[in-house]
Amino acid sequence: MSISTPLSALLGIEHPILLAPMDLVAGARLTMAVSAAGGFGILGGGYGDRAWLEAETAKLKQFAGPFGIGFITWCLAEQPELLDIALAARPRAIMLSFGDPKLFASRIKATGARLICQVQDEASAQQALDAGADILVAQGTEAGGHGTDRALIDVVPAVIDLAAGRVPVVAAGGLADGRGLAAMMMLGASGVLLGTRFYASLEADGADEAKKRLCAAGSGSTVRSIIFDLSKDHVWPAPFTGRCLINDHTRRWLGHEVEMMQNLKTVAAEYAAARAARNYDIAAISAGQGVGLIHDIPPAAEIVDRIVTEAEQLLLGRRNFVSAV
Amino acid sequence: MSISTPLSALLGIEHPILLAPMDLVAGARLTMAVSAAGGFGILGGGYGDRAWLEAETAKLKQFAGPFGIGFITWCLAEQPELLDIALAARPRAIMLSFGDPKLFASRIKATGARLICQVQDEASAQQALDAGADILVAQGTEAGGHGTDRALIDVVPAVIDLAAGRVPVVAAGGLADGRGLAAMMMLGASGVLLGTRFYASLEADGADEAKKRLCAAGSGSTVRSIIFDLSKDHVWPAPFTGRCLINDHTRRWLGHEVEMMQNLKTVAAEYAAARAARNYDIAAISAGQGVGLIHDIPPAAEIVDRIVTEAEQLLLGRRNFVSAV
Repeated sequence: MSISTPLSALLGIEHPILLAPMDLVAGARLTMAVSAAGGFGILGGGYGDRAWLEAETAKLKQFAGPFGIGFITWCLAEQPELLDIALAARPRAIMLSFGDPKLFASRIKATGARLICQVQDEASAQQALDAGADILVAQGTEAGGHGTDRALIDVVPAVIDLAAGRVPVVAAGGLADGRGLAAMMMLGASGVLLGTRFYASLEADGADEAKKRLCAAGSGSTVRSIIFDLSKDHVWPAPFTGRCLINDHTRRWLGHEVEMMQNLKTVAAEYAAARAARNYDIAAISAGQGVGLIHDIPPAAEIVDRIVTEAEQLLLGRRNFVSAV
Repeated sequence: MSISTPLSALLGIEHPILLAPMDLVAGARLTMAVSAAGGFGILGGGYGDRAWLEAETAKLKQFAGPFGIGFITWCLAEQPELLDIALAARPRAIMLSFGDPKLFASRIKATGARLICQVQDEASAQQALDAGADILVAQGTEAGGHGTDRALIDVVPAVIDLAAGRVPVVAAGGLADGRGLAAMMMLGASGVLLGTRFYASLEADGADEAKKRLCAAGSGSTVRSIIFDLSKDHVWPAPFTGRCLINDHTRRWLGHEVEMMQNLKTVAAEYAAARAARNYDIAAISAGQGVGLIHDIPPAAEIVDRIVTEAEQLLLGRRNFVSAV
């Protein structure tokens, strides 16, 4: 069986499950694995490493299936030539997050690629629609990595009501199983975009130690803050903050950001050394609030299959709660 | 038609929709209106005003339908005799929120009333199960009024997995329509508990001006903070904070709590005057993140009917997205 929605029809995929374009984690290998399983892989263009992007898109050019490529919009604006490298790989979609997509929309759509825009509220959703977005991803505060403060249960209906059926809306943030997919479909979402769940997969480019920590973390073990961006001396534009696993570094500095800034040179040096050494007591592991649902590191295809099977059972079964009186 | 779940069966009600026991808002009139419509009204015992409780329970004693009575657990501990007044009204359930229910569980259950416990994480859920809770309400950060920081999409599956089918789990926080009920049922919830949606009803005891502001507020117009508790000079035990509509008072003091505390005598006097005058530019209106879904002030029965009708359509209709390949 498959789950068919306006999203899956538009992208020509079997199941409405998208891979979040996670920086350094969603490489060509994971992108192809998700797409081969019937979902839609999106390469993590991230902050824009040209050599990495050329190498990964070269692999995608050999792939027969559909795929997308994602960018951080405000970073892409600093290196707009990266979009040409991406488009040359003939992606079925480009996904833009965190910034006004207007600057890039016409170049993307001129190639026939779909424009996917991740949004966090009505204002950014309207901006994306005005730019010609074909698909909106409504991201809740539950998401790992960068995002803002509104919860899924609030922002998904708000964006769906604003889109008013003109484009499919995908839910993102804290989702990791078939319950989440089925629940978001009840809100009117046309699919889901998953990050952390695919981070803990065989094909993800993350470190084994990071994947193991994701499996070990219970629910309630993440925090949204600016500590890691501060520690990298790479602060994002407001209102974006980042959600990561709680570790020694967050426990030390949460609520003491001013003190951190007063000692930034030392903290940043320590932090850079920890990242290089993959010391995750200090270095951040991005993770969404759904991390408590993740307990293993299977192939991406198995993740897709589990989610679809569980969601199908729920969508077919929950109707039995409705009864004639 | 009706929506029947383990929750509705346990409480002997038609629809799995519970009224949140909102302090000063969920009086006997609203409680009876929700129950008469097939849901389950829960009187808002709140901080414990003995005269109010006696007057409202006197009305409930004349009511033939089922109802519950809710208390703030740590406040009830200061006036445990209020529980006797409540139990004398023969409620079908007592709901306890914010604190260890162990102290009161045996007295409640000895009368045959069900014990409903609102929880915010695994630790409070385990505490409630240990105390003998018959029903858990998993409250997300989206909720209006007091609560904590974890989102519904995280805490509902976490509590359901912990309960492991032993007791029904109800979802609370930011829910206001049939989409929310259907979505929470997909996560495995057995029903929903709604506050803000019923605040904006004809039968709620809140001020008309407060109800009008709830209707006018868009999504994204609430904030969770300790400002209002501080302003009342009535700080709650950690980790509880309160979600209210953003107003002049929150804009003035959010992020300046230390300054507020340094001027607390003046601020508290101004705040008390504003509350007495129903000046909601300063006084708080508790509201959940679902406030953007609320646009009118209908009778409670119409709210129940709308939610059930919409959820039924979703539960019956969304199965069509599952297709044989």
